[in-house]
Amino acid sequence: MSLKKRLAQLSEQAKQASYELADLSTQTKNRILNEVSVTMRRQSRVIIRANQRDLREAEKMDLSGAMIDRLTLDSERVHQMAKAVSDVAKLKDPIGISLKSWRRPNGLKISKVTVPLGVILIIYESRPNVTSECASLCLKSGNAVLLRGGREAFHSNRAIVDVYERVLKRHRIPQASVSLIPVLDRRAIDELLKLEDTINLVIPRGGEALIRRVARNARIPVIKHYKGICHVYVDRDADLKMALQIAFNAKCQRTGVCNAMETLLVHRSIAHRFLPVYGAMLEKAGCEIRGDETTRRFLPGVKKATEQDWKTEYLDRILSIRVVRSLEEAAAHIQKYGSAHTDSIVTQNQKTARAFVAQVDSSSVMVNASTRFSDGNEYGFGAEIGISTDKVHARGPMGLEGLVSYKYVVQGTGQIRT
Amino acid sequence: MSLKKRLAQLSEQAKQASYELADLSTQTKNRILNEVSVTMRRQSRVIIRANQRDLREAEKMDLSGAMIDRLTLDSERVHQMAKAVSDVAKLKDPIGISLKSWRRPNGLKISKVTVPLGVILIIYESRPNVTSECASLCLKSGNAVLLRGGREAFHSNRAIVDVYERVLKRHRIPQASVSLIPVLDRRAIDELLKLEDTINLVIPRGGEALIRRVARNARIPVIKHYKGICHVYVDRDADLKMALQIAFNAKCQRTGVCNAMETLLVHRSIAHRFLPVYGAMLEKAGCEIRGDETTRRFLPGVKKATEQDWKTEYLDRILSIRVVRSLEEAAAHIQKYGSAHTDSIVTQNQKTARAFVAQVDSSSVMVNASTRFSDGNEYGFGAEIGISTDKVHARGPMGLEGLVSYKYVVQGTGQIRT
Repeated sequence: MSLKKRLAQLSEQAKQASYELADLSTQTKNRILNEVSVTMRRQSRVIIRANQRDLREAEKMDLSGAMIDRLTLDSERVHQMAKAVSDVAKLKDPIGISLKSWRRPNGLKISKVTVPLGVILIIYESRPNVTSECASLCLKSGNAVLLRGGREAFHSNRAIVDVYERVLKRHRIPQASVSLIPVLDRRAIDELLKLEDTINLVIPRGGEALIRRVARNARIPVIKHYKGICHVYVDRDADLKMALQIAFNAKCQRTGVCNAMETLLVHRSIAHRFLPVYGAMLEKAGCEIRGDETTRRFLPGVKKATEQDWKTEYLDRILSIRVVRSLEEAAAHIQKYGSAHTDSIVTQNQKTARAFVAQVDSSSVMVNASTRFSDGNEYGFGAEIGISTDKVHARGPMGLEGLVSYKYVVQGTGQIRT
Repeated sequence: MSLKKRLAQLSEQAKQASYELADLSTQTKNRILNEVSVTMRRQSRVIIRANQRDLREAEKMDLSGAMIDRLTLDSERVHQMAKAVSDVAKLKDPIGISLKSWRRPNGLKISKVTVPLGVILIIYESRPNVTSECASLCLKSGNAVLLRGGREAFHSNRAIVDVYERVLKRHRIPQASVSLIPVLDRRAIDELLKLEDTINLVIPRGGEALIRRVARNARIPVIKHYKGICHVYVDRDADLKMALQIAFNAKCQRTGVCNAMETLLVHRSIAHRFLPVYGAMLEKAGCEIRGDETTRRFLPGVKKATEQDWKTEYLDRILSIRVVRSLEEAAAHIQKYGSAHTDSIVTQNQKTARAFVAQVDSSSVMVNASTRFSDGNEYGFGAEIGISTDKVHARGPMGLEGLVSYKYVVQGTGQIRT
């Protein structure tokens, strides 16, 4: 069978499965998830063996140490993964909720009721626990899922999906509800992205190049974020101690993540008090600073920031700093160079805070808090399937609520239109 | 300037305007809309003169009578258009609404607050009042709009947008808030669809060919419906009189619209009572029937329906009829041939109604009501910018609520992540 036909068939089976999933009771979905959790623990050794096969092959592939670490599963990580599945069982079912309901003068009762999206394609890399995270969230929200993981984690992903398939089979639910794309050919992605009649949404997770390729080639809706160029703006009315803590935390608590700060903006009238102390903190933490001219006056010896720096997601112990003359200049900088991910202001002035929230057009805007809180778990969603910097459908951290659509249900008593 | 550059500049100006629009108060937006309404009435003769120029050119273009009618503006139609604008002023502002708000154990207060989408591109044909409808709804929801109307209505559209521009100028709001694309070249559409950095959403309205072309070429999110193949299913437990009225209304009250019924499904055990009476009603109304074999047993002389008939949106006095043996068969037919627009069941059995609502995966599912009610005005939205059969973002009739996104606003007191 040709690649194209094979993938079309796979997605058609997922579509058929999605009709059954849409109709499952909360109880059944939770029972399945809990059984997956138990089975996963029991199959721990099988999963780890599959993972070791991936790791052996990875050695030949010359992956970085960080990638090898993300790929590795041990007994504890499998148990964490299993626990995450039973945690999803505890979350509120997002399906069948009446979002709104009203009666028209002619007696028609209209309700806007949540329904699953249908079939969701996830394209991701490296970490095998993403496989189970996505499968459990899609199951709970009544969606069929097509998982296209990276080549380097193929056997681990296969072993994890096997657990789901086994439990689904026991419950006589189509195994196509959770499918791992068996084709590793890169062209498979391009073919999948054309299947607009069967796939309802694609969520690419990974590097910017991968996501841009998906966005360019997809005929199906894409929810994505390219990168996280997050800003902290230290306002003239900031509490100095709070500003130091937040700016340090946003940059240094963890650097390789999308909600870490990449550029710090400081109001001119607080710069002389803030920058020398902050510069010393960063130096001690081994973090490099690249500053604009004013910054370099307060922090001699600091490298000059170029236009390219403002556009760069370092994901590393590097920070660019710019001194601004006003909130408007800070907001304009964020608008121009930011990625609409997460931006934070530190200020004790409520009016300034309100203006910042209004003027900064990002998916998460924070006041007096570290950008590192921009995360599904920190927002209380229980789990996260991705982060969206798009404006359509879902924005910011996406939990179960981001995986639903709705239908209008109209109840009449014989009404006709005149 | 090249076409590409010119359109990029236009959309960039719209983007800049959108930041100002996002921050306008409800009061200002309503004042602008009310002034547009008054100015439009005053400019009635100018608009009609521009329309006459379009009509003269249309004569040479060999347009159908229906298209000429849709294109024509007279004094009454201009007044209706002006009234529609002041009606939008009366609608509730959809921006700045806290959809949800909660506090985390660490004291962070998280709110999900509605914001405009940004820049919306509308691609449409023929009716010039669509220009004003879309402009007023986008203004009210704080979005900048790029209007790409049909060549045949260009001068009318220009005159209508002039009214908006005049009022915007008076309020010192960027005229790029409402822009008519001045380039009629078809390639302009393809160029616009690539501007993913400045345009947030495209809504194509028109024939299926146009919409498919937009969906295929767009790099920006598209909200659309290709067609409306709406079904009425007359269940075995239907009230016969109600079924006759609803099925007649859904087909005959108006035929050229997307929420008119195109296929009727009838349960076998009620067919012998329903079909002969219904057949006579349709015959009297001059409506042609194409039926499956069982239908033709009850309605001799009726043409045989082909596979193609089930897939066809007639938009005319033609109806296809199929007799089914069960609710499941009806739902499977709708799933296979329907367009996820609107489907209705007529039944007195509440359990059957519930099963239909659950199994039919359409944007509007009705019980004992005519499909013709699937419409923004009938749902009480006040106005409609389009209908979506997509599952992402907005589904069904789209009013102001379909034109918003949201942002997360996080209020802290210095929280950092540990």
